[in-house]
Amino acid sequence: MRILLINANTSADITDRLVAIANAMAPDGVVFEGATGRFGARYIASRAASAIAGHAAIDAFATQGEGAGAVLLACFGDPGLDALREMSPVPVIGLAEASAGAALRLGARFGVVTGGAAWQPMLTEFFAGRGHAAALSGVRTVAPTGAEIARDPEAALALLSATCRACVEQDGAEVVILGGAGLAGLAARVAPRLGVPVLCSVEEGVRAVLAALGQAGGQAGAGMLAPAPVETIGLSPALASMLRNPPCHRP
Amino acid sequence: MRILLINANTSADITDRLVAIANAMAPDGVVFEGATGRFGARYIASRAASAIAGHAAIDAFATQGEGAGAVLLACFGDPGLDALREMSPVPVIGLAEASAGAALRLGARFGVVTGGAAWQPMLTEFFAGRGHAAALSGVRTVAPTGAEIARDPEAALALLSATCRACVEQDGAEVVILGGAGLAGLAARVAPRLGVPVLCSVEEGVRAVLAALGQAGGQAGAGMLAPAPVETIGLSPALASMLRNPPCHRP
Amino acid sequence: MRILLINANTSADITDRLVAIANAMAPDGVVFEGATGRFGARYIASRAASAIAGHAAIDAFATQGEGAGAVLLACFGDPGLDALREMSPVPVIGLAEASAGAALRLGARFGVVTGGAAWQPMLTEFFAGRGHAAALSGVRTVAPTGAEIARDPEAALALLSATCRACVEQDGAEVVILGGAGLAGLAARVAPRLGVPVLCSVEEGVRAVLAALGQAGGQAGAGMLAPAPVETIGLSPALASMLRNPPCHRP
Amino acid sequence: MRILLINANTSADITDRLVAIANAMAPDGVVFEGATGRFGARYIASRAASAIAGHAAIDAFATQGEGAGAVLLACFGDPGLDALREMSPVPVIGLAEASAGAALRLGARFGVVTGGAAWQPMLTEFFAGRGHAAALSGVRTVAPTGAEIARDPEAALALLSATCRACVEQDGAEVVILGGAGLAGLAARVAPRLGVPVLCSVEEGVRAVLAALGQAGGQAGAGMLAPAPVETIGLSPALASMLRNPPCHRP
Amino acid sequence: MRILLINANTSADITDRLVAIANAMAPDGVVFEGATGRFGARYIASRAASAIAGHAAIDAFATQGEGAGAVLLACFGDPGLDALREMSPVPVIGLAEASAGAALRLGARFGVVTGGAAWQPMLTEFFAGRGHAAALSGVRTVAPTGAEIARDPEAALALLSATCRACVEQDGAEVVILGGAGLAGLAARVAPRLGVPVLCSVEEGVRAVLAALGQAGGQAGAGMLAPAPVETIGLSPALASMLRNPPCHRP
Amino acid sequence: MRILLINANTSADITDRLVAIANAMAPDGVVFEGATGRFGARYIASRAASAIAGHAAIDAFATQGEGAGAVLLACFGDPGLDALREMSPVPVIGLAEASAGAALRLGARFGVVTGGAAWQPMLTEFFAGRGHAAALSGVRTVAPTGAEIARDPEAALALLSATCRACVEQDGAEVVILGGAGLAGLAARVAPRLGVPVLCSVEEGVRAVLAALGQAGGQAGAGMLAPAPVETIGLSPALASMLRNPPCHRP
Repeated sequence: MRILLINANTSADITDRLVAIANAMAPDGVVFEGATGRFGARYIASRAASAIAGHAAIDAFATQGEGAGAVLLACFGDPGLDALREMSPVPVIGLAEASAGAALRLGARFGVVTGGAAWQPMLTEFFAGRGHAAALSGVRTVAPTGAEIARDPEAALALLSATCRACVEQDGAEVVILGGAGLAGLAARVAPRLGVPVLCSVEEGVRAVLAALGQAGGQAGAGMLAPAPVETIGLSPALASMLRNPPCHRP
Repeated sequence: MRILLINANTSADITDRLVAIANAMAPDGVVFEGATGRFGARYIASRAASAIAGHAAIDAFATQGEGAGAVLLACFGDPGLDALREMSPVPVIGLAEASAGAALRLGARFGVVTGGAAWQPMLTEFFAGRGHAAALSGVRTVAPTGAEIARDPEAALALLSATCRACVEQDGAEVVILGGAGLAGLAARVAPRLGVPVLCSVEEGVRAVLAALGQAGGQAGAGMLAPAPVETIGLSPALASMLRNPPCHRP
Repeated sequence: MRILLINANTSADITDRLVAIANAMAPDGVVFEGATGRFGARYIASRAASAIAGHAAIDAFATQGEGAGAVLLACFGDPGLDALREMSPVPVIGLAEASAGAALRLGARFGVVTGGAAWQPMLTEFFAGRGHAAALSGVRTVAPTGAEIARDPEAALALLSATCRACVEQDGAEVVILGGAGLAGLAARVAPRLGVPVLCSVEEGVRAVLAALGQAGGQAGAGMLAPAPVETIGLSPALASMLRNPPCHRP
Repeated sequence: MRILLINANTSADITDRLVAIANAMAPDGVVFEGATGRFGARYIASRAASAIAGHAAIDAFATQGEGAGAVLLACFGDPGLDALREMSPVPVIGLAEASAGAALRLGARFGVVTGGAAWQPMLTEFFAGRGHAAALSGVRTVAPTGAEIARDPEAALALLSATCRACVEQDGAEVVILGGAGLAGLAARVAPRLGVPVLCSVEEGVRAVLAALGQAGGQAGAGMLAPAPVETIGLSPALASMLRNPPCHRP
Repeated sequence: MRILLINANTSADITDRLVAIANAMAPDGVVFEGATGRFGARYIASRAASAIAGHAAIDAFATQGEGAGAVLLACFGDPGLDALREMSPVPVIGLAEASAGAALRLGARFGVVTGGAAWQPMLTEFFAGRGHAAALSGVRTVAPTGAEIARDPEAALALLSATCRACVEQDGAEVVILGGAGLAGLAARVAPRLGVPVLCSVEEGVRAVLAALGQAGGQAGAGMLAPAPVETIGLSPALASMLRNPPCHRP
Repeated sequence: MRILLINANTSADITDRLVAIANAMAPDGVVFEGATGRFGARYIASRAASAIAGHAAIDAFATQGEGAGAVLLACFGDPGLDALREMSPVPVIGLAEASAGAALRLGARFGVVTGGAAWQPMLTEFFAGRGHAAALSGVRTVAPTGAEIARDPEAALALLSATCRACVEQDGAEVVILGGAGLAGLAARVAPRLGVPVLCSVEEGVRAVLAALGQAGGQAGAGMLAPAPVETIGLSPALASMLRNPPCHRP
């Protein structure tokens, strides 16, 4: 079974890295295939870049989603998540939402550490919108962006550990999520210093999408109820076609 | 002073109509100038179309926003509102948010009537995210889309009145908002049949943007705190430039 | 058109000052007329004084409201706001509510700085009751009351700036509101030191009431649905008459 | 010990009736003494009347509160409750708040039945502001006002029972509160027809104030933290004195 | 009349102490009778111990509740409260819920001081679940458990006072609750040092249960609506019988 | 790897059925092992039975949890969930929480259909406490209990389909969860009639626990922060030992 991994940013090297992590975790018969945003920011550092990424994610799904068994929106902050779900006949998993679910399997309050100051208010709003206002102990960002951390993870470990510790000791987190592609793979190295679970958002997203695979099987359709067909201009042919012929979920 | 009126959809005729309504309300020295989405749906009928419209709105702002004294995001549901605010040095007004503010000047609970079934959950989430979960009595959609109503408003009056009456009598609304370009101009004709205020979302948006004009004067900068510069691909030159050089609001 | 500006306190000199600010902002054909509370505190420094001011505001409206095109409740904290709306056929604007609306045109979270320690919990409750619990970053009060600051604004500038800066840096405010008549006119002087928008509650109230003017035109009635007629004793004749013959908003 | 029972309305006969009910429940050594609003509506039938009643309640407390061991604000809807608490060195109990507390001793969700359509939105807001949004199953009003029901309680029993039953069967109430002086004494007659507890708001207020008596003993001061002294005009001498010399609760 | 005081822990000496406090406050004709958990922890120091205590409380009620006029669940945190209410024909009062009600008679925000670190998140969740998320200024625990404080209350006074002061000055509490049997009797000694009310949770629970006594009289049944009969194994005979024959509250 | 499946009820035949379903879904190397409550109700039909089940679940974990790689609390409503997490070094999954997470992968609002009227308020409170108040469209119960449905699933299909349809058409659900062991296996048969996803709570719980397996690997400890050791009486030796020596999660 093929799973579409959408990197809503435009950094193909990041997509490759995410796909490699995912395929290393995949069981036999499951293959993650990457899709990189055709337009937009290299990484999301503003609300504007996030809005564009929502479009890019849907565009990627329209172009490469046909026949996928599930979709992993591999961008912490989950731009376009509900739009993808509306259009997709198969489950769609976002890194941030999946990580929150995973964190709440282990404790009652979770903190988030990620790269890029713009994400602090954006993620606070995201988790509040998903019902986790009380469960989120807080979002802390580290000065370098996720991309910069990806370039030199070693230098970032001490900073990350200190920030995670602040989540626990000052904010009351019982679990900490390291959010974003830039921090992928660092959770296992930070966890031993903390004494509480530290989760990798990418790994949790992969686990959630694997869990959802069986869920998709045996179901005729899925998603949200209300999309109506509409004509468009200026979109990729696949996206235009998808909006012209949205799935019908109405009972 | 020039005000940028962004129609995040791709129907230029709707843009013209919105601009005409706005300029008829503008005082001397204020001119509304229209911008139509370069890509996306003719009107928003799904979450996917709304996500694309967020991108289109920012694109329009980047292309035509220079020198504007304020921005009116003339699309009920306000796709891209916070992203525009993040990037704009001048006030940005959305139709839905402005209409809620106007309704709450007159009563404690407001109902919304608009075209297109997809908007029911989308607007409920929008108003909840803006703190109006308790003030919103409910969203009711009429079967035809806003565009269809625009084509034959007469036929829609009886239906609209009945739907507004349901907002008041069944949902407890004290004020009703007719949302969307398709219903522009109908509020004054429905109101006499209702006995409670019926607001036109376009007129309320225009009023709010005119009110905000003075607000912008005398202020060095505005917007949200956190955007960081980032490189992009595949965007319009103006949008790419804006993301590469976002405004700095930090004190 | 005449607009009734109600100072719910009993300081006529403050009323004069508020009217002067408003009329300086008014377009041709619009005149603000002041009404000062006939009884109650010089300024509000307790919940008891605020409750009395609610009565005084309605009394002023009953006495001087006839024929007004709109009402500006020019007291930050908006005592009696919903009662005025219930009784008024024209829009009623409160300083605090209007300022919140204006702040949210510019950013997602706002802080409030005002005079008088009693206002900290009262305003926190007010904004929460209006749906802004998440949007309010916090209320900070400066040691002198608004009235004292009005007497020596120069001495207060450094303190105000530092307090506003705390709203931004410690509380996460993206916009700061200077609330109350005592701080009127100081926003423009504090803003340059901050780097984020600083709003004057009086100016925002005036802008909102001007915006609402058109809104009132063309509407037969407005307000809230439920007032029933009742006999009273010990009230001013105008207020007694208003409660005996409340407006009928029911459809 | 003397307990001040404040009827914030201006119907002295209602005050007498409330005092009689309270004294019939009082143990030896406890005497309820009535205070009737010196100004305002005969009964509250609008938000305006409620705002005036807040002033009247504080005025009554300032005039007659000296030496009382507790205060019962005997007006369902509790106008002026927090202002009274701010100024009072002894516990202040409101009928609505006390009834909610009593209802929640018996079940998880309570409904309210009272007289006068204006109370539906007012009480819904009141209970939401006190944290009971989820616990309140709904407020239903009966067509006659409380005062009218008081005049002919027999005729109202069937209507009341049917309304209470709707609270249980349609709204999910586990307990029903009969709110207001007009319905005092009817709970015991309605309860047998319902099968779930039906509470009388006056009796619950009396019980709560008796429970609070011991609480007051041995405490130097109480109330809220922030009132500051202020000069006033046009108030009763006792109220003016109270605002000039508010209690100091700060530690 | 006999009132059942349930100590959901297994420390009979604590039960005796709670009963002594309650009977010292009881009027003639009212006698508190203690019931100690037959199994579980000596005091609650974990969520697991709290869950067991919920079972123990219901077991105690099933065994000794017959004929009681009311039930006092004398364990701050109120384990099993709603289950008891479901099964009880008479009012059930929990220490934490009753204390919150008592605190809110005196001010708008309350803080909690108790023994045992596990209670900080547990009580925060408890009060949020009861609608007091906004009213709770915070829970602070002192290093020794309640049981340890009970052993040497003198040594704890200075620590308690400092912790209560932090509730007021850092958290904004207007009233402070000393929660738990271990702190019973200390409120009166801490209060004079604070300047704001300090409540004893045990005394407030007793006051609430006495207030509820009259409430129970004249009512056929009470409690929650939905329990269905079910067979059990391994329970005490009384508890098995109660689950086999639950009360029928349905109208 | 062994996974402990806890049936908090006392019906061993239900445990066997749940284990069979789980093992049919388990990959090679993973074995579910059942644990049945040693005491309590055959199935949960009241709050009292649910409270007892919380104790029984912890008891089962203490007795059989040693060495398990994860824990599945296979009782829809998740009694004892947080207490298990506090004590467990490995992830603990509850059926209701896992099903909500699965539903939200497919849509924005979910409905619940389960057996037994007592669950309507209990599950509404459970999901609200987990942040899903806005996402839950409602809980509908079918007249027969889950156990009864299990006995004759054929007869229940029409009823279930109609109830699910009511969730969609009347409550606005986009996904429906069939909750409880009694309804296990019926989702796949109901789904084709609905047109929207219908989830089996047992299957979703199994998927979530399999997803969490990798999560546990590589982590030293997990759970919640605060349990303190305490002596007990009357418990099973394993449970007494666990409370005497709780895990230490503090960093």
